[in-house]
Amino acid sequence: MTLLKVRSKIWLEVDGEPVLGEGRERLLTLIEQTGSISAAARKMGITYRKAWGHLQAMEAKLGFPLVLRQKGGAGGGESLLTDEATQLLRRFALLRRGLNSEIDEKFSSLFPPSGD
Amino acid sequence: MTLLKVRSKIWLEVDGEPVLGEGRERLLTLIEQTGSISAAARKMGITYRKAWGHLQAMEAKLGFPLVLRQKGGAGGGESLLTDEATQLLRRFALLRRGLNSEIDEKFSSLFPPSGD
Repeated sequence: MTLLKVRSKIWLEVDGEPVLGEGRERLLTLIEQTGSISAAARKMGITYRKAWGHLQAMEAKLGFPLVLRQKGGAGGGESLLTDEATQLLRRFALLRRGLNSEIDEKFSSLFPPSGD
Repeated sequence: MTLLKVRSKIWLEVDGEPVLGEGRERLLTLIEQTGSISAAARKMGITYRKAWGHLQAMEAKLGFPLVLRQKGGAGGGESLLTDEATQLLRRFALLRRGLNSEIDEKFSSLFPPSGD
């Protein structure tokens, strides 16, 4: 069993439907970093329409806005995450990171690399 | 965020390919319980051929046999899990169960049910 590895996936659901997983986490993080939905979509290799659809679906399920659009400015305005979105993102990252280390630890104790 | 729930999935890989997840765990457990690959397949709603394919794929990746067929007897022989398969199953169940409780705990502390 020396080449065995553990993999895991974690996501949040509302009413039994997925609302936040790694893909959407990345989308929100990229919007936060770039200040732009279209730049974030481009970096993810998806269309603006698709990114927008994800945001709409999330907002509808969560019941609060995730992105604020600010009009004007040289670049034609910026998209900012709401405080709720930032908080959700931070908490999800904490949940995921804490878990990954737990999983790795538990896995190494249950499946020791050398023999047995 | 009152309706938010956490979901997770865990699986084992060999050389980057999935080898054991919940579905195959269930298949092995049913073979252990029924002593029969075809009875296990029936309970899972899959064909014998498909169940057999899963076993072959797992054995090839893991490098050890999972099922022993014993010929003869009134029912035409029995399929038994090997010691390695039993051990793998126990460890995977421990990994999964331990993790589920960690996840629930971490989730409730990060996403408290009543407000903020």
